Amino acid sequence: MTAPILIAVDGGGTGSRYAMRRGADYSEATAGPANVSSDFDGALANLRLGLGNLGLSAGELQDARICMGLAGVLDEEDAARVLNALKFPHLKVLDDRAIAVRGAFMSSGVGALAGIGTGSYVACLRDGAVQFAGGWGLALGDEASGAWLGREALRAALMVLEGAGLQSTLVAELLKGGPARIMRDAALADPTWFGQIAPLVVNASVTGDKVAMDLLNRGAAYLSDTLRRIGWTDGMPLVLTGSLGPVYKPYLPADMRANLKEQEGSALDGAFAYAAEMP
Amino acid sequence: MTAPILIAVDGGGTGSRYAMRRGADYSEATAGPANVSSDFDGALANLRLGLGNLGLSAGELQDARICMGLAGVLDEEDAARVLNALKFPHLKVLDDRAIAVRGAFMSSGVGALAGIGTGSYVACLRDGAVQFAGGWGLALGDEASGAWLGREALRAALMVLEGAGLQSTLVAELLKGGPARIMRDAALADPTWFGQIAPLVVNASVTGDKVAMDLLNRGAAYLSDTLRRIGWTDGMPLVLTGSLGPVYKPYLPADMRANLKEQEGSALDGAFAYAAEMP
Repeated sequence: MTAPILIAVDGGGTGSRYAMRRGADYSEATAGPANVSSDFDGALANLRLGLGNLGLSAGELQDARICMGLAGVLDEEDAARVLNALKFPHLKVLDDRAIAVRGAFMSSGVGALAGIGTGSYVACLRDGAVQFAGGWGLALGDEASGAWLGREALRAALMVLEGAGLQSTLVAELLKGGPARIMRDAALADPTWFGQIAPLVVNASVTGDKVAMDLLNRGAAYLSDTLRRIGWTDGMPLVLTGSLGPVYKPYLPADMRANLKEQEGSALDGAFAYAAEMP
Repeated sequence: MTAPILIAVDGGGTGSRYAMRRGADYSEATAGPANVSSDFDGALANLRLGLGNLGLSAGELQDARICMGLAGVLDEEDAARVLNALKFPHLKVLDDRAIAVRGAFMSSGVGALAGIGTGSYVACLRDGAVQFAGGWGLALGDEASGAWLGREALRAALMVLEGAGLQSTLVAELLKGGPARIMRDAALADPTWFGQIAPLVVNASVTGDKVAMDLLNRGAAYLSDTLRRIGWTDGMPLVLTGSLGPVYKPYLPADMRANLKEQEGSALDGAFAYAAEMP
């Protein structure tokens, strides 16, 4: 009897990663974006391409246990659309957050995680169940994220024009093009546009800019409040992921800082764990 | 010597109004939207059409003192673009908020105003000068506006799903289509879309819905804080305009409620006042 084929897929909004494991055999591949909510057809094309790049035969793909964690899988309906489109007999489709959390606490199965990139979410894994919070998108939330930092920085700058905010180097930089420019840009902006302002905030915070530090303190307060609310308690490992994860380390309360850990495994590792459980 | 021709224009995002006064002669006209920021060419076409509908000759329009208050005039550059395009010798172009405030306090020249429709702004007129606050658009502000009420209602509803918010009839209604639906809609939504939720909030508040009343209390707190900050003091007339103005009356502090007045004149009256001052 040969070892079963396991396939792990981590599909994000900027690119997707694929890995195959069969006993001691291991291979990896990549493809383009796979956010099924923002571009379903494009995501499907990339998923097919990425799976094809693993070098398996059609028959082997039919036999494989495949777990995909995909950005933009908001509910069962989204997952069902992918299942119906791909028609693999052993396919599990999850939200990309689910495989990231599983991977981060592979062996222990216990821990909390804050994923902070252009968007944000927090999660707490315990007793085999994950509780999520946040991740509603910039219009409705995504507090502490890069997009949120950028938007709140612009709001802080405009408040100075109203005589109600704190002046700072960051504020002066943001106001260089004038308020009309900011309003015009913001009216049409998506989270990625706001997120491009986040590095200015981070850089300013390093030089002691009070407005920038205030924003990071507000973001950290959101993260710590939400982590406690969904079940983080002192002693539970805490992982910060995403491009902005490390930025928040010094802004978290001492009890959280004391429990910060590196993630045990990647999102692909998490997807493999789900794939291995499939019948 | 004949009386001078005065023309007043109130250009908004959904329609524009035109009025002509020459001694005892008076005429009015209407045309389509005139937001020069969201659609410059369309706004110009409507402005030409509306002025034409006043029934004046080309020579009379050249002689007339014209004041336009236009939505989307964010800075001097926007005003200059309109001046250059229309080329009337006696033309003054202002933000539509400026003519509304001038009209509201025509004779007294003193008062504060909160304009609350899909967007929001506050203003304080005193000693011939107006101080504005807010009006930055939904992404960056517009607190208390219809768009803000709608967005914050959705945020409150999603918080309930995270176990952190207050359940209510309004929340149940907003969650009927599920959170994925809300996220998909909100990611693409403009202020008008969010504003369409505001009537649900207002109706719920009338039946005592605590989530709806909390939102109106938050909006009222923003309005009263901002009005005081830009110079409103007890005894100064306060006008609430816009479709949502009246909604906030019972939620304002007692000293503000005691000073609420009807506006003295319309935005067209304000534009006439500016036109009459032109050389």
